[in-house]
Amino acid sequence: MPSRILAVGTRGATVARTGRRPGRTQTREEILTAARNQFAARGYTATTIRGIAAEAGVNPALVHHFFGSKDQIFVAALNLPFNPATLVTTVLDGPRERIGERIVRLFLRLWGDPATRTPFFALVRSVSSNEEVAAQLRQFMENAVLAKVADALDLPPLRLTGAVSQMVGLVMVRYVIGAEPLASATEDEVVALVAPVLQHYFTPA
Amino acid sequence: MPSRILAVGTRGATVARTGRRPGRTQTREEILTAARNQFAARGYTATTIRGIAAEAGVNPALVHHFFGSKDQIFVAALNLPFNPATLVTTVLDGPRERIGERIVRLFLRLWGDPATRTPFFALVRSVSSNEEVAAQLRQFMENAVLAKVADALDLPPLRLTGAVSQMVGLVMVRYVIGAEPLASATEDEVVALVAPVLQHYFTPA
Repeated sequence: MPSRILAVGTRGATVARTGRRPGRTQTREEILTAARNQFAARGYTATTIRGIAAEAGVNPALVHHFFGSKDQIFVAALNLPFNPATLVTTVLDGPRERIGERIVRLFLRLWGDPATRTPFFALVRSVSSNEEVAAQLRQFMENAVLAKVADALDLPPLRLTGAVSQMVGLVMVRYVIGAEPLASATEDEVVALVAPVLQHYFTPA
Repeated sequence: MPSRILAVGTRGATVARTGRRPGRTQTREEILTAARNQFAARGYTATTIRGIAAEAGVNPALVHHFFGSKDQIFVAALNLPFNPATLVTTVLDGPRERIGERIVRLFLRLWGDPATRTPFFALVRSVSSNEEVAAQLRQFMENAVLAKVADALDLPPLRLTGAVSQMVGLVMVRYVIGAEPLASATEDEVVALVAPVLQHYFTPA
């Protein structure tokens, strides 16, 4: 599976734009600023591409062209170190009896790489210290990730949030707090420890 | 089990003290300031009551009298919203086959109470944003909680950190991020969801 971390919206725009014509980078930054304002003011759910375009003074087609979907704008606006589409694909692609292992290995790969770990730490700090960011991320997770997975697997949403809680805690204890022996355990040791728990959550009673 | 949250070191000191005699509250604050300095400079493990007393310019017996053990000074210095002795007692007291349920109910009681939730949030912020605090808390957890429980239950420490990761994640997703439906689930629903996972960690393979 290709890693698309932080790789959203880097292709150039060729869509026509009214008014003065700033450079491509400046337009992209203006759209991101408008998106941050809209997400902060309205939350993830109520924000629309049309609303972001209006605040940025550009055509909605330009926003689509730069970023694709609303999910992708959110990823770029909050500088999220993961792509929800990748996450959903990882969970759903492959045999269901190995979902737990696939998820654990994906998280260890993302957090084991210093390049993605740094923005992850920034995200943990934002969520912990800023209720507005926590609310936006919550709505985003519920809409862009959890609802899709629960639906595709016919899984009770509560069990899915159980799995999420295990993965969030694994990351906090292994990487943020760094408690031993979990912090220094090998990837295979962590898989042996945690994958059965995830598998349990993904197996309805 | 009595709730001793934030109730450490509130009894007065009657131990003799050399030099000027400031009020009881002032002395207690001076000891706490010295303790914060010592824990920050040396970490939890290398800090001693003798060292804290020396920095505060008081007799070590006075530090003992105000706070009891080094663990208790740490709890007061970092304003921890839980008492590690209570945590260890909860885990160890009662039938081993219900350890999971006991731990989940304790955490939900602590986080469900607004009076203890507020300092918990402050703790999460500190750990997420300050590596020094994270390091102190890590050493404290390893020494004052995890080693004692692993030893008493003859449990591999890695399995114990697995259980810790599940509880940390439960708290993050239910209370800090507030993701539904976990945020609004009843206590019994959360117990049914998470207690079997904890029980799994507390049952060596």
